[in-house]
Amino acid sequence: MNEAAVKTIVTRVLKNLKSIVKIPIGVSNRHVHLTEADFQKLFPGKKQLTVKKELSQPGQFAANESVTVIGPKGEIGKLRILGPFRSNSQVELSATDARTIGVKAPIRLSGDISGTPGIVLRSPYGELQLEEGVIVAKRHIHMSENDASLLGLKQGDVVAVEASGDGRKIVFNDVVIRTGSRFNLEMHIDTDEANAGNITSAVIGRFI
Amino acid sequence: MNEAAVKTIVTRVLKNLKSIVKIPIGVSNRHVHLTEADFQKLFPGKKQLTVKKELSQPGQFAANESVTVIGPKGEIGKLRILGPFRSNSQVELSATDARTIGVKAPIRLSGDISGTPGIVLRSPYGELQLEEGVIVAKRHIHMSENDASLLGLKQGDVVAVEASGDGRKIVFNDVVIRTGSRFNLEMHIDTDEANAGNITSAVIGRFI
Repeated sequence: MNEAAVKTIVTRVLKNLKSIVKIPIGVSNRHVHLTEADFQKLFPGKKQLTVKKELSQPGQFAANESVTVIGPKGEIGKLRILGPFRSNSQVELSATDARTIGVKAPIRLSGDISGTPGIVLRSPYGELQLEEGVIVAKRHIHMSENDASLLGLKQGDVVAVEASGDGRKIVFNDVVIRTGSRFNLEMHIDTDEANAGNITSAVIGRFI
Repeated sequence: MNEAAVKTIVTRVLKNLKSIVKIPIGVSNRHVHLTEADFQKLFPGKKQLTVKKELSQPGQFAANESVTVIGPKGEIGKLRILGPFRSNSQVELSATDARTIGVKAPIRLSGDISGTPGIVLRSPYGELQLEEGVIVAKRHIHMSENDASLLGLKQGDVVAVEASGDGRKIVFNDVVIRTGSRFNLEMHIDTDEANAGNITSAVIGRFI
């Protein structure tokens, strides 16, 4: 068998394998990640976030602490802080949220905040001006390097995922693969995307 | 040539034709349609809506008049009234809006409001309890019967439309064809769906 024939078979096997993988879909509500320093400016005297709920990705959690996000056209309260602390503070809003408060947030992958708008956060103790960091999260799938390898995928690849929500079946293209040794397989979308697909906890994604 | 062969050719021609049709996409913000009686309860002494802006479908318009929609968990102001009057009052919200005000609105085609939740509307002059009529609009394409016929489609057919919004390319399945002699070709989606596809006025839909 020549190399081309092997490649064809491998491509077909990978396609079949991908077609049977069920991708859990996690819907991210608006939230904020903070640096330790920014947290301590907003919550003076507190050293650490307190855990309200563990999230599906190991080590990640929703904190009891929340803030209000204040834009030029409005504000939204109870913006959940997610832990642990990060090296850059980042506010993740849906495009609906961003419009509501009047901030032009670009669609970016988490961490890619260069040149994004700033915003004001308010805690019960005071306000903090972030110079940048407001994004609408780009849809993505977390998976381990091992899972990615089995599926013929790697960090940064772009895939399409179909979700069969009742009455609003949808295909999300432009879904970015994000690998990490501790990542569990899970697609992350925001509330606008979940609503567009009528995606409840019962709805599973599939590669197409 | 036998009948099967003709059918195959016709199917192929229709598919090709559909693939070159550009579908303008209109994004419907939250709005309300009112009966004449409900309007006059909310705006006593006024006989008729006043036109703020003609809409893309002939005879349809956004009125200068607006109301506030009040749910158990919150309210949203400046809910635009669309004219002309209808035989039933109907509130169309995005799923994001519905959650914000705490109403469980089902995904329904316009007009199909039997068994849907009621809601309170408030004008500058008073409040009105609607007994039913809150929906999240099911995505659909308006077209004339003639256009539908050319495309091998008819009222009630369900199609898939791809939209290539920057960074959020998407395929909307479960798109219902709605024909009417005066309808202009246009797909209607709500703000959640537009945001999920990053759909701006420059983005065109295509049948797939």
